[in-house]
Amino acid sequence: MSDTIALLTDFKFQDPFIGVMKGVIYGINPDARIIDLAHNLPSFDVRHAAFILKISYRYFPRGTVFCCVVDPGVGTTRRGIAIKTRNYYFVGPDNGCLFLAAFEDGIVKAVELKNREFMLPKISTTFHGRDIFAPVSAYISRGVPLSVLGPQVDLGSLVKIELKPPKISEDEYEVEVIATDGFGNIFLNIPTESFKEPLGTKVIIKTKNKTLQAIVGRTFGDVSPKNLVLLKETSHGYLELAANMASAREILGVSPGDIVIIKIKDKN
Amino acid sequence: MSDTIALLTDFKFQDPFIGVMKGVIYGINPDARIIDLAHNLPSFDVRHAAFILKISYRYFPRGTVFCCVVDPGVGTTRRGIAIKTRNYYFVGPDNGCLFLAAFEDGIVKAVELKNREFMLPKISTTFHGRDIFAPVSAYISRGVPLSVLGPQVDLGSLVKIELKPPKISEDEYEVEVIATDGFGNIFLNIPTESFKEPLGTKVIIKTKNKTLQAIVGRTFGDVSPKNLVLLKETSHGYLELAANMASAREILGVSPGDIVIIKIKDKN
Amino acid sequence: MSDTIALLTDFKFQDPFIGVMKGVIYGINPDARIIDLAHNLPSFDVRHAAFILKISYRYFPRGTVFCCVVDPGVGTTRRGIAIKTRNYYFVGPDNGCLFLAAFEDGIVKAVELKNREFMLPKISTTFHGRDIFAPVSAYISRGVPLSVLGPQVDLGSLVKIELKPPKISEDEYEVEVIATDGFGNIFLNIPTESFKEPLGTKVIIKTKNKTLQAIVGRTFGDVSPKNLVLLKETSHGYLELAANMASAREILGVSPGDIVIIKIKDKN
Repeated sequence: MSDTIALLTDFKFQDPFIGVMKGVIYGINPDARIIDLAHNLPSFDVRHAAFILKISYRYFPRGTVFCCVVDPGVGTTRRGIAIKTRNYYFVGPDNGCLFLAAFEDGIVKAVELKNREFMLPKISTTFHGRDIFAPVSAYISRGVPLSVLGPQVDLGSLVKIELKPPKISEDEYEVEVIATDGFGNIFLNIPTESFKEPLGTKVIIKTKNKTLQAIVGRTFGDVSPKNLVLLKETSHGYLELAANMASAREILGVSPGDIVIIKIKDKN
Repeated sequence: MSDTIALLTDFKFQDPFIGVMKGVIYGINPDARIIDLAHNLPSFDVRHAAFILKISYRYFPRGTVFCCVVDPGVGTTRRGIAIKTRNYYFVGPDNGCLFLAAFEDGIVKAVELKNREFMLPKISTTFHGRDIFAPVSAYISRGVPLSVLGPQVDLGSLVKIELKPPKISEDEYEVEVIATDGFGNIFLNIPTESFKEPLGTKVIIKTKNKTLQAIVGRTFGDVSPKNLVLLKETSHGYLELAANMASAREILGVSPGDIVIIKIKDKN
Repeated sequence: MSDTIALLTDFKFQDPFIGVMKGVIYGINPDARIIDLAHNLPSFDVRHAAFILKISYRYFPRGTVFCCVVDPGVGTTRRGIAIKTRNYYFVGPDNGCLFLAAFEDGIVKAVELKNREFMLPKISTTFHGRDIFAPVSAYISRGVPLSVLGPQVDLGSLVKIELKPPKISEDEYEVEVIATDGFGNIFLNIPTESFKEPLGTKVIIKTKNKTLQAIVGRTFGDVSPKNLVLLKETSHGYLELAANMASAREILGVSPGDIVIIKIKDKN
């Protein structure tokens, strides 16, 4: 049991949706401690949400219930699920948004949310965050076991998100942009431990429109303002392309899903 | 008495105004549980705030104090008020922003905020959220009765917001856009129970610039991506015009206050 | 000791950084009360953050720990510090963002954050908010004294922010834009008590591109909609240039750092 519920949604801050979910949670568990993990996520982008959850969950207190609502299929036949992992709980639609984090932490059990006793009395077709996922999260935070929420789900049937593997040759890495952050830093689909070039290596960054130089570094200040640095020791475990006090996303003109080629210059 | 205070403002998140209100509240009631209902509301748009409060308040724990600061008239002669309803408290300027919700829940009593004992010692002319509404809300959450906050207000004198009634003919509904949300969904000023057409009905949507087809449906996935669906069972009780994984507001080019004509196609 | 921790960052709300910092804090102090002072601040703008903190801190409960992360130099040689003032604690990078507030409240002691026992086990080069400042703030909120966090810092060596003094002549004030808020109100670097003109005075506002009239007033409603008012009794103690239900920043086309000339018209 835990009192901490972390919310991750693509709801926007000017709308009442996040606030209403909190109202529902406090109505069920007045002792809940609610943390906004993040909101305003790119609308309907399940892969982005899955990535954010994966790089964040381990910093939360053991037992935290993550309630993730990025749910373009709300009201259709997609399932609502709750997952118990070795250290946490995850609640949300079965569209992959919970998968990367839950899989990494080690899935112990998953159930389909079927028991209406733990939902709001009236369930809308467009706002399951309020009617199903918030109340279920609140009940789990109060100690309700997953087994009473609905039938067990075969783990193999859970919808998965697979991050495309990078292509690595002797002097070139072909990687994909997973996501960008609000500063314009670019997260690439290659774990830092798979990138073997030493600090200070000069690299050429090729995107569909731009070819620019970058330096393999440790932090933003390793290059002059507006210059590119390829961070090989990041706060989240993935290679990151950044600019010193500027937006690498704008400089390079890339979006999630785009391919970036990193060519090692020294080896030419 | 309740410890829950819900904040609804048009303050922007990059500004310290919301944070400062919370600092003031915790200084008065360290046990308060503060929920952000929503912020970043359209600046000075009292009707929008009134609508958001109306579709949200009932999901909060009984006894919640709603502190609403959308207050273009701050520092002028407009009154500050506190309202007790059957289940809740509402605090804010008497400009209508509290009215729709308070009226629906059933107003028991209203007072004008006059007793300086329950405000900050120094009252500015531009930030009553901090100097008056936050402290008053905190004192109410601690159990201070409305009667000591100021003189009773005649309920008939409260500033009202009236939503324009829709015009309904045999095969046409002329309705107004009340608000749009961060996904671009459009809320129309007609309660869902007044819209009698069955699911699957084809309708023509006319706005000042566009004429497009929509289908009466239950959820976003009832139409193909980027197509319009007219939701007749919504999470908030008003008819909603939406697009599947796209922004109906952008597709139709409408803003709050605009007229939308819904023509029933099957009946032609 | 205090349980209140106020966060002030330039992190963006769609990113998990703020949420992760809260996860870390609750892991160390489950009884912490976390307040978002503000986020989404202009990226890397240390002076803006320092100003926001200065006009806000005094509204928080005595003993609040302010954790400020506007940190363009993260991972470089800039120091991390904790400051104890007469009534509060301030934690963040030693780049000036804490200075204006801490100095005003009266600095009692400052230490450099060196003791790894009070940080996360692994310290990244790009996210000291999570790895150093959040845990240190949480430990201070639990009563850990500054003396164990690291060596004392000579107060004279703290990085300072100096607001440029205004130039005042008989009929003219030459002032600088310190910051603007989300409504477009403009904060000027002159304390209200240094502006001696009476209410109702007509003034000419000159910026690099515009010359417009304003009236010295008390609140937004003292002028007609979209007209300029020069507020001489503000909620924060600095002279403020605003427009009634409109954005003075857009009307005048100014940005932080720009010079504004206020010419007293009546004296011409």
